Amino acid sequence: MAVNLAPPDPARLHRVAGVDLGVAMVNIRKPDRKDLLVMRLAKGAQVAGVFTRNRFCAAPVTLCRKHLKNPIRALVVNTGNANAGTGVDGLRRASAVCAALAAKIGCKPQQILPFSTGVIMEPLPVERIVAGLPQALKNESDWFCAAQAIMTTDTVPKAASAAVKLSGGMATVTGIAKGAGMIRPDMATMLGFVATDAKVDAAKLRAVCRRAADASFNCITVDGDTSTNDSFILVATGAGPAASSAKDLALLERAVTEVARRLAQAIVRDGEGATKFVTVRVERGRSLAECRRVAYAIAHSPLVKTAFFASDPNLGRILAAIGNSGIEVESLRLYIDDVLVAARGGRHPGYREEQGVAAMKKPEFTVRAVLNRGKAEATVWTCDLSFDYVRINAEYRT
Amino acid sequence: MAVNLAPPDPARLHRVAGVDLGVAMVNIRKPDRKDLLVMRLAKGAQVAGVFTRNRFCAAPVTLCRKHLKNPIRALVVNTGNANAGTGVDGLRRASAVCAALAAKIGCKPQQILPFSTGVIMEPLPVERIVAGLPQALKNESDWFCAAQAIMTTDTVPKAASAAVKLSGGMATVTGIAKGAGMIRPDMATMLGFVATDAKVDAAKLRAVCRRAADASFNCITVDGDTSTNDSFILVATGAGPAASSAKDLALLERAVTEVARRLAQAIVRDGEGATKFVTVRVERGRSLAECRRVAYAIAHSPLVKTAFFASDPNLGRILAAIGNSGIEVESLRLYIDDVLVAARGGRHPGYREEQGVAAMKKPEFTVRAVLNRGKAEATVWTCDLSFDYVRINAEYRT
Repeated sequence: MAVNLAPPDPARLHRVAGVDLGVAMVNIRKPDRKDLLVMRLAKGAQVAGVFTRNRFCAAPVTLCRKHLKNPIRALVVNTGNANAGTGVDGLRRASAVCAALAAKIGCKPQQILPFSTGVIMEPLPVERIVAGLPQALKNESDWFCAAQAIMTTDTVPKAASAAVKLSGGMATVTGIAKGAGMIRPDMATMLGFVATDAKVDAAKLRAVCRRAADASFNCITVDGDTSTNDSFILVATGAGPAASSAKDLALLERAVTEVARRLAQAIVRDGEGATKFVTVRVERGRSLAECRRVAYAIAHSPLVKTAFFASDPNLGRILAAIGNSGIEVESLRLYIDDVLVAARGGRHPGYREEQGVAAMKKPEFTVRAVLNRGKAEATVWTCDLSFDYVRINAEYRT
Repeated sequence: MAVNLAPPDPARLHRVAGVDLGVAMVNIRKPDRKDLLVMRLAKGAQVAGVFTRNRFCAAPVTLCRKHLKNPIRALVVNTGNANAGTGVDGLRRASAVCAALAAKIGCKPQQILPFSTGVIMEPLPVERIVAGLPQALKNESDWFCAAQAIMTTDTVPKAASAAVKLSGGMATVTGIAKGAGMIRPDMATMLGFVATDAKVDAAKLRAVCRRAADASFNCITVDGDTSTNDSFILVATGAGPAASSAKDLALLERAVTEVARRLAQAIVRDGEGATKFVTVRVERGRSLAECRRVAYAIAHSPLVKTAFFASDPNLGRILAAIGNSGIEVESLRLYIDDVLVAARGGRHPGYREEQGVAAMKKPEFTVRAVLNRGKAEATVWTCDLSFDYVRINAEYRT
């Protein structure tokens, strides 16, 4: 059901020197599926992360925030159980996983970042995870395999890769992500991991991580709900060329952002019940915040989203959503793809509804609002609200 | 499909001295249905109103805001066409309706309040409305008939009534409303009209109007979208006893609020695709604003609303919605009806899921979050998100 989303070609996912991947099947929730991933990092790798702003955050997120102060040697990700809503016991269980992995690879537990995704409010099966660590540590997986190992209800594995020429040589950037709704009923979470072999200073890496997240994962919405486990991690192993000059850093940031954006868009394309991939672009607003507010008002409106599903160019719903975000609609211009559909607070005289219907029947289109009150702009990617969204979320536990 | 909502009993809707009602069939959009209502008010009647905060507001709303400065002699309401998204031409057409009615009843156009609800972005058929005014002015309708005349996609007419003993005698309070979604695709609008025969000072009436709206129409949500035409009007004709002492005013306000609340709840019960009527109550928050933010976070979450539809006591979704509104969930207690379901950020040990399912299978239940961080509280009424919501909104124009 995913919108224009094919599985990635394993051959086009660059290896990242300094990252060793291993997966295992440990039966956390379902048999015969990869549900454990270990990413070992070369000594000296720098790691940055951004996490859910939901105050109801999961135990692994709490630990990650703490551990990130230390030199990180490995990430461990399990699916099938989110270890969220589990209180103090959940923290103990996440710590136990870190301790077990640390003992095996010879570092401190505080040098491990744990991630969990799956059902919430159930105790994490630590024993099964710990028992599976040797299997994950002895195999040598690729990024495609790693992408498969972190899927929950995703229908397609999500991975993207880029190579970038820095002054010291070619650097690779490869990432994987999972998620098919901002939060999935009990199958919580968006997770994104991007790694590069470039050598990047810690403070600079944190800034790149934050900006890349803002330009990718923070620009998507399926249903407006933010998960308890959302995490985006950026690793720079330093096994490749340095990105220390401003120019090299900018090149690297562009590649990281591009990879993160493709991963983020893949999550929307694989959104719950999605039949359309919609770019909402707001231009000439007073500030970035204003543009984002308008874009999300459009992208979150259930009425607009059901109109997307119906290929119905319902201008009233879109204008009302914009009006609800506090913007006077009299001076804006609204486009669907390249068709000017509304101006001066009403339908544009030259617009015929067939044009809007034709644009919206496509699996991908852009809604563009030009506010004519400033110079800022913002883009958000979203999907429609279909019968299947209700079915998936209403029937999930029945 | 409305949840526990029967048509009102015409015999139990008190007349309000000083209000004359008349309806007509003028074929605005559909034949053979009452689609025009005129409410004439006795000389000296006081009128207060609150309107949509959507910046994309309809022409009649703009006129109402202006005209309210004058002594109002009549309200005129048409269904079938919302006169929204119609720019300057829309204002001209709404003014023409006011002028025609004013000429017929002998007042100035600025003493008429116009209201429209129905399809948006279509020109208001002024001629048909004006041609129907004599019919509306010569018949003598009751409140039940008036409630029918303002229905659009409502499945049940909405009216409520109360009588209250003031020191100068019995006063009556009767009201009608329409709406089945905060905004309906092209059939926009929530409208509410409440009248009393009590005599109330203008400034005091405005305050009662604002507070009654805040405790009723501003506490409901179907889908979080605010219409371009939403209006709530409170009339005090002065044909009955005075409400001038603080005690009488308080009694009257209570009756007005009760009537407004029953009308507001009727809108939710008749919500698009609604199968459940849910009261979301937030207690012991730091401020009213905080409590309302939390209540709306729960009431607007598509994941929570689909869980309501499925009778699925999905604690994780509710806690995640609360966490998204910026509240630490560790110290709150969450109840479904009287069952304590969550505490300390996780499932309550004594809770069994059958209890939650049993409560949520009922057509009406309460979700109550006790935040334990202050003394404020707020209540919001909402409904579930069902297949029919998507069907109604996706198929409306096809």
